Amino acid sequence: MQLQLRSSSSASALFSAVQVKPPSSPPVRVKALFTKNPGSGTLKNSNSNTNPNPNPMASNPRWAQKTVTLPPLRRGCHLITPKIVKEIAQDLSEFKCGLAHLFLLHTSASLTINENYDSDVRDDTETFLNKIVPEGRSAPWKHTLEGPDDMPAHIKSSMFGCTLTIPITDGQLNMGTWQELHGCMLLLTSLLTSADCVLHNCLI
Amino acid sequence: MQLQLRSSSSASALFSAVQVKPPSSPPVRVKALFTKNPGSGTLKNSNSNTNPNPNPMASNPRWAQKTVTLPPLRRGCHLITPKIVKEIAQDLSEFKCGLAHLFLLHTSASLTINENYDSDVRDDTETFLNKIVPEGRSAPWKHTLEGPDDMPAHIKSSMFGCTLTIPITDGQLNMGTWQELHGCMLLLTSLLTSADCVLHNCLI
Amino acid sequence: MQLQLRSSSSASALFSAVQVKPPSSPPVRVKALFTKNPGSGTLKNSNSNTNPNPNPMASNPRWAQKTVTLPPLRRGCHLITPKIVKEIAQDLSEFKCGLAHLFLLHTSASLTINENYDSDVRDDTETFLNKIVPEGRSAPWKHTLEGPDDMPAHIKSSMFGCTLTIPITDGQLNMGTWQELHGCMLLLTSLLTSADCVLHNCLI
Repeated sequence: MQLQLRSSSSASALFSAVQVKPPSSPPVRVKALFTKNPGSGTLKNSNSNTNPNPNPMASNPRWAQKTVTLPPLRRGCHLITPKIVKEIAQDLSEFKCGLAHLFLLHTSASLTINENYDSDVRDDTETFLNKIVPEGRSAPWKHTLEGPDDMPAHIKSSMFGCTLTIPITDGQLNMGTWQELHGCMLLLTSLLTSADCVLHNCLI
Repeated sequence: MQLQLRSSSSASALFSAVQVKPPSSPPVRVKALFTKNPGSGTLKNSNSNTNPNPNPMASNPRWAQKTVTLPPLRRGCHLITPKIVKEIAQDLSEFKCGLAHLFLLHTSASLTINENYDSDVRDDTETFLNKIVPEGRSAPWKHTLEGPDDMPAHIKSSMFGCTLTIPITDGQLNMGTWQELHGCMLLLTSLLTSADCVLHNCLI
Repeated sequence: MQLQLRSSSSASALFSAVQVKPPSSPPVRVKALFTKNPGSGTLKNSNSNTNPNPNPMASNPRWAQKTVTLPPLRRGCHLITPKIVKEIAQDLSEFKCGLAHLFLLHTSASLTINENYDSDVRDDTETFLNKIVPEGRSAPWKHTLEGPDDMPAHIKSSMFGCTLTIPITDGQLNMGTWQELHGCMLLLTSLLTSADCVLHNCLI
């Protein structure tokens, strides 16, 4: 437990030093990879899609795939639903029934779904991860070349996983009242993290 | 370890007090959201679907989405495959190849796949979760307003996750001989838990 | 910690005794279950598919489902991306945008995504799993009939999970630079492990 507290305070110090951007103004960047228009079979950039679906009963499947770059976030668990949904909102709104698949392209971060209301839940989750995966001199890891937080981050990433699939219902992520996407940044120095978002569906 | 044993015994006491329904008579409730008929393009309630697919070679994708409400289950890990499969059986039987996606709408429960034979496995899994995520006075959690079991439940939910995707082959969940869906209820007072089930497929 | 070290060394001894095949010559076996040709609606074995897609703009969804049998692997975490990709490469190459779903049919193994470069990361992950889930006389498990490593394997399997979904972009698994599929074998005697691979997509 002492290790965890020491780690936590040194983290705060480093955050002040590197001047990470506050999460309140996230420079989310989006790269649209693929969007399949229902009934057209042509490629388009979903960000410029202003035409409503001409034939909602067409059985063509729709797919959309984008890379969303999350803003710099300090070590810890963060609510990222607004950031993700903002970037995929237009595609999402056209999916009556489907799945949204999220995939983090990194091995030192993880995605999970947890409580969205009390920030203490995110802090306690970080406390748990630090307690269960020790770092520093007492830790038994062989992989230490990239810093004391690197191997613990890899383990934590596997514990929570880097991928999530969420049902889409009526153009929205169908999560419970208290559920929200959490992005857990597991390194002190994680500045940006890309997430692939894949939506797939059939309009009905 | 002492904490875990004490927690476990107080849990048993509470279960007796609240008289949760035995899992043997589950009042599973189902709300059909969407079902896409192959070759028709019309909405239907899958529970009333008695017509066989008129054109199995049609390339139309099929989707079905339902909300299944699990019965009251006491804290612990429970086999829920029969409950889930019973409610999605008709849709499932029409999918020759596809995926079944399950999503729990709660942050104090989790879905996992584990051994289906010996109930000791479920008990030991609960023992592990209680050992690894302590609750009570010795626990370091800040989020305690909703009771001593609330924050541990959130952490356990993230550890195992609230979502699963299972291959469908020849109209059945394609799991290993010893595999079964486990629903882990992580609060003493969890009485019902909704699961969204999304099936998606293409008839071939 | 002592328990973990003892367990680790006894594992090495047993590996020498049972003469498991080295992972360098994996007898991966593949059973093609379903492959949906775009625009044809007929079944085929994807391994014999040499015809390019005649109409890439057709909106027919494509699905492929296979069972890949992994080679005997000793207890620990192993890189399995080459083994998996080799067996699904032909189908994969025809999917411009989609998802690859992997599912292990066992309760004593798990799939995770982690760092692909330093083998110490895999060793440290195994060390973590052994530390967090004790085995032997000091362990509190009731389920011991199948050996001291059986119940710990079930718990570790639930921690990391037995299923993964990865985006497909331009015919390849779209993972980060340092990401790779890890198969974690959690029993001393695990000799082979089947994985169902499901690809689903729409050509665009």
